[in-house]
Amino acid sequence: MFQSDGFRALERQECLRLLAKAPVGRVVYTRQALPAVLPVNFSLDTDSSVLLCTSRDSDLVRAIDGVVVAFEADEFHAEHRAGWSVVVTGRAAVVTDPAEHERLLRTGPDSWMPMRDGVFVRIEAGMVSGRELAGARVHGTA
Amino acid sequence: MFQSDGFRALERQECLRLLAKAPVGRVVYTRQALPAVLPVNFSLDTDSSVLLCTSRDSDLVRAIDGVVVAFEADEFHAEHRAGWSVVVTGRAAVVTDPAEHERLLRTGPDSWMPMRDGVFVRIEAGMVSGRELAGARVHGTA
Repeated sequence: MFQSDGFRALERQECLRLLAKAPVGRVVYTRQALPAVLPVNFSLDTDSSVLLCTSRDSDLVRAIDGVVVAFEADEFHAEHRAGWSVVVTGRAAVVTDPAEHERLLRTGPDSWMPMRDGVFVRIEAGMVSGRELAGARVHGTA
Repeated sequence: MFQSDGFRALERQECLRLLAKAPVGRVVYTRQALPAVLPVNFSLDTDSSVLLCTSRDSDLVRAIDGVVVAFEADEFHAEHRAGWSVVVTGRAAVVTDPAEHERLLRTGPDSWMPMRDGVFVRIEAGMVSGRELAGARVHGTA
């Protein structure tokens, strides 16, 4: 169903399927009372939560451990004015269980940055929403 | 200069040059006390503020008119684990001056969506920060 604003709302399963193929997403949070955003690579866990790997002493961990954040991924093609975006909103928490940390060392995301004392952060897939822009209104572009 | 975390901080002018070539960015704000994010196409005005075009009665306008938001754009290449991101943090406001609105109809961004009663929203380029990941640590990928 296309909505009047030109977007089609995506079902949760479709959102998760799109998320699973995105290499990079963006953590959206609040830092010192201001809106903040940081792109990171990530993976989805078996329960569809978002997993990041970062430094234990990072500003990001200090800001988001234990609080509700948004996580966004998208893919747009300017030439067609088309694409999709998905937003997961849920509680973020550092993975502290040693067995779980061990499991994620094997199956979780690998940081793109060199780091010491890396930790995994899980963002629960509490609310998942997404939308697709089909690009019907192309004009003035190829 | 590369920092210890593998990122290079970008100067303001370099950030604005990268922003100018990005077709899509993301407005980061707070909606009903939760972090929120919405991808939009945009352009940069002559004073380097970010310009969006959206519907006057949109949820986005209600949430951000008159408040400080972040605006992020990035470009990453997963195969090289490289890319850049830029964040502008500043006050967002609907353009209400008729002459300014007229000017932006000619020079401002064109919404990718069909809309009635469109307005321009300006995000002041108060704080501009950016970083580049050079992708030095590629392993296990082509």
